[in-house]
Amino acid sequence: MFNQKKIKINFFSAKTKKADIALKNLKKKYKNYPMNKADIIVALGGDGTILSALHKTIKLLKPIFGINRGEYGFLTNPYKNIDLIKRLKKAKKTEMHVLKMVATKKNGKKNEAMAINEVSLLRNSRHAAKIKIYIDNVLRIKELVCDGILLATPAGSTAYNLSARGQIIPMKSKLLALTPISPFRPRSWRGALINSKSKVTFIILDEKKRSVNVSADFREIKDVKKVEIMEDRSIKLSLLFDPDHNFDKKVLTEQFSF
Amino acid sequence: MFNQKKIKINFFSAKTKKADIALKNLKKKYKNYPMNKADIIVALGGDGTILSALHKTIKLLKPIFGINRGEYGFLTNPYKNIDLIKRLKKAKKTEMHVLKMVATKKNGKKNEAMAINEVSLLRNSRHAAKIKIYIDNVLRIKELVCDGILLATPAGSTAYNLSARGQIIPMKSKLLALTPISPFRPRSWRGALINSKSKVTFIILDEKKRSVNVSADFREIKDVKKVEIMEDRSIKLSLLFDPDHNFDKKVLTEQFSF
Amino acid sequence: MFNQKKIKINFFSAKTKKADIALKNLKKKYKNYPMNKADIIVALGGDGTILSALHKTIKLLKPIFGINRGEYGFLTNPYKNIDLIKRLKKAKKTEMHVLKMVATKKNGKKNEAMAINEVSLLRNSRHAAKIKIYIDNVLRIKELVCDGILLATPAGSTAYNLSARGQIIPMKSKLLALTPISPFRPRSWRGALINSKSKVTFIILDEKKRSVNVSADFREIKDVKKVEIMEDRSIKLSLLFDPDHNFDKKVLTEQFSF
Amino acid sequence: MFNQKKIKINFFSAKTKKADIALKNLKKKYKNYPMNKADIIVALGGDGTILSALHKTIKLLKPIFGINRGEYGFLTNPYKNIDLIKRLKKAKKTEMHVLKMVATKKNGKKNEAMAINEVSLLRNSRHAAKIKIYIDNVLRIKELVCDGILLATPAGSTAYNLSARGQIIPMKSKLLALTPISPFRPRSWRGALINSKSKVTFIILDEKKRSVNVSADFREIKDVKKVEIMEDRSIKLSLLFDPDHNFDKKVLTEQFSF
Repeated sequence: MFNQKKIKINFFSAKTKKADIALKNLKKKYKNYPMNKADIIVALGGDGTILSALHKTIKLLKPIFGINRGEYGFLTNPYKNIDLIKRLKKAKKTEMHVLKMVATKKNGKKNEAMAINEVSLLRNSRHAAKIKIYIDNVLRIKELVCDGILLATPAGSTAYNLSARGQIIPMKSKLLALTPISPFRPRSWRGALINSKSKVTFIILDEKKRSVNVSADFREIKDVKKVEIMEDRSIKLSLLFDPDHNFDKKVLTEQFSF
Repeated sequence: MFNQKKIKINFFSAKTKKADIALKNLKKKYKNYPMNKADIIVALGGDGTILSALHKTIKLLKPIFGINRGEYGFLTNPYKNIDLIKRLKKAKKTEMHVLKMVATKKNGKKNEAMAINEVSLLRNSRHAAKIKIYIDNVLRIKELVCDGILLATPAGSTAYNLSARGQIIPMKSKLLALTPISPFRPRSWRGALINSKSKVTFIILDEKKRSVNVSADFREIKDVKKVEIMEDRSIKLSLLFDPDHNFDKKVLTEQFSF
Repeated sequence: MFNQKKIKINFFSAKTKKADIALKNLKKKYKNYPMNKADIIVALGGDGTILSALHKTIKLLKPIFGINRGEYGFLTNPYKNIDLIKRLKKAKKTEMHVLKMVATKKNGKKNEAMAINEVSLLRNSRHAAKIKIYIDNVLRIKELVCDGILLATPAGSTAYNLSARGQIIPMKSKLLALTPISPFRPRSWRGALINSKSKVTFIILDEKKRSVNVSADFREIKDVKKVEIMEDRSIKLSLLFDPDHNFDKKVLTEQFSF
Repeated sequence: MFNQKKIKINFFSAKTKKADIALKNLKKKYKNYPMNKADIIVALGGDGTILSALHKTIKLLKPIFGINRGEYGFLTNPYKNIDLIKRLKKAKKTEMHVLKMVATKKNGKKNEAMAINEVSLLRNSRHAAKIKIYIDNVLRIKELVCDGILLATPAGSTAYNLSARGQIIPMKSKLLALTPISPFRPRSWRGALINSKSKVTFIILDEKKRSVNVSADFREIKDVKKVEIMEDRSIKLSLLFDPDHNFDKKVLTEQFSF
């Protein structure tokens, strides 16, 4: 990935003991540059940490190399006691787009947020949510009675999407997974894989009684009445992996893990 | 079901136009007794109304005959312009037990509630819930990472349980359906059918960060740290159905509806 | 289970090395009686062996104690180097009924067979099977287009039924699991749990072109046009388990294995 | 699709009454050219007929316009009494690749066949099949104990694949769906979506006892021991649809039908 002799690293770390020990060891050997001056961000932790680092770099667009010092490390590389500079030079890049969400609250206020993994809606009252779904402005479901629904990117398809029994999708497939959470009516709807260029619109019905929250990755917006989601094609994030350990291989491995 | 010549009816109705018109018609023909003096409650509405009527009668233990004036009428009989007294005399009884739930809030306060359909837990923050599960005091799942989990009776198995992809269970099977909502870890756990005499205990882990609400049918209790559920065998509710339309037939029909 | 001082054992063994070694060891210590003179059959092997032993004893009705010397041992007890007589005396009995199947071949010939686990139909040509389904002589599915369908007992519910995504059912629930294999139309039908006293009838449609075989456990009958199944309540098989290891506990454990 | 003034049609029809009537009507109005001299094949029937027509044209590579005169018409256009030439001129093309399968029989003989929808393996004895799975020569499953397994193209993903509970995949996603049929071990494996350029190899284990057949669409080969599948990128089939009724819209509609 890198041709220059010197690579400036910014270390980004989870606030856990395990990540902290690794951070101290690495800082002894390599200089820690400020994020805006760095060529690359090395993130220490689990998938949550990598996701945080990716969000931080949505504006700076620095490549990220994750090192697993957390519980689940789907987006990370293994921790190894080898020359980090050499490792980074050999690393392969996986590019990904992000989802841009515009959520309109019950009070009319609009909020924007970015999602790398998924945008998910969940009911916020004891009443089932009722959601109207448009894809590219075409009405697809008039009223989904459910706990919620999510729209996941390939990167996010192995996360929340999988637990809602959505499908894992390879990075290069240019698809998004639309997956319902406890669909009550229509009860046999299993979700859909849609073109990643689609615009998805959720309208919350009866939103005063049937309150719904939306989350774009970590960012939660309460009591929404409308959520619009589109891929932001102006942003391209780069995640780095060891050559024998690239993202598509990882997706494949995950699809065959049981 | 009834041998006496005269049957005293209490009418219980949903607050909808459709139910209201039916109520007015029926009140013209039959006297409306107070609930505590009635032999039977005739409930007009959908399943929600029948459920409300059942909850009202947990202490009085009056039999209930539901008449469908709502959207979903799984617990109801069809609306017919025939002699109601004759119809009630011919009706067949389906008996059901209720679940008794004791929920302990984060602040230590205990709340009791009854459930005819299900007791369901759902996360109340943007963080996945982590729940420990005991059955008859035996640890069965150390940590279920999920949106939530529910325990449904046979009556409730066609409702919320079904949308979380639980199984429909016949009334006489003496089973309860334990069904996860978006299970993240262990990701392939599909739930279990357990003996209806089992005591089920849910412990909310990391409950300060990972807040969870519980609902026993309509009754919601927020921010719980422990939920214990057992069938209350001292209570037997009676739901009446037309002879050709009994509950077990309805369950069978529902299992073959697609 | 046994009160008499002396227990006469018949050893029944899988034809594998692992089972053979165990058999030799046991025969050194305990006399091997002919099956018809024995009080109990001790079967060495995996679930397949136990199933064979159960089939052998459908007429003799001897209790069976399985010892695991095979791959999957759901119906067995662990292999232990302890006093077998004492162990058998402490063992607890699980009783089970068997399914009686009458299959009518295309040529009109009828065949009877017993099933302890399941009766399963599978297409026997490159064409999808089309099957009409009656329960207690009531038409429930007019035409199921599929690879096949199975009807499993509680004992069989953890076997083939589970792989066709049917539900595990506890022994005491008096249910049978009716589970489709690759249902094409109606595509969203997930099967049903039905009363164990039900009579199930499958009619193979277009059976000349769309050939179907049926299996009652190991016994296969080819090219059938009609299959009728009922629990045979005249037969009660007894399977013995160590007290801390009974069948219901095993079912529960299986439901929580992932 | 067509710019020339005159379009030479070859009519291809199912042998059903419904298709026959339509065929007679159309032949009155339009000349029927031999397939090798025609610009386009107009196929009358259901999906089976279109699939037959596509197989016929794998060597000729003529575009096909399907008209629904059958039961399921996913690959067809509606039957309309309008000018066919004008309709064909406005039609939009969907291109698809085909799968090339090489099956090695138990006796060592090799057979080649093409598949437009799917290649599917199904056990051909009462014993569960045991199948080893390689993707691009990397071992992915050591031993899948199952009824069978299938590999579906996007076009086939709404057919057999869907009934085995595989996912519907859009035409442009360049994916194939690998979907198990009744997976017994590993029991929680749900299949995978893989890159359409992958080579998939199935090795039948214990193939003498556990006999398996393979089908490439209609073509069945019995008793195989090895099956290799790759997309044949030298062949591009063209299926035509009315502009408002294109294949991707149909896939989307199918994903939202319940």
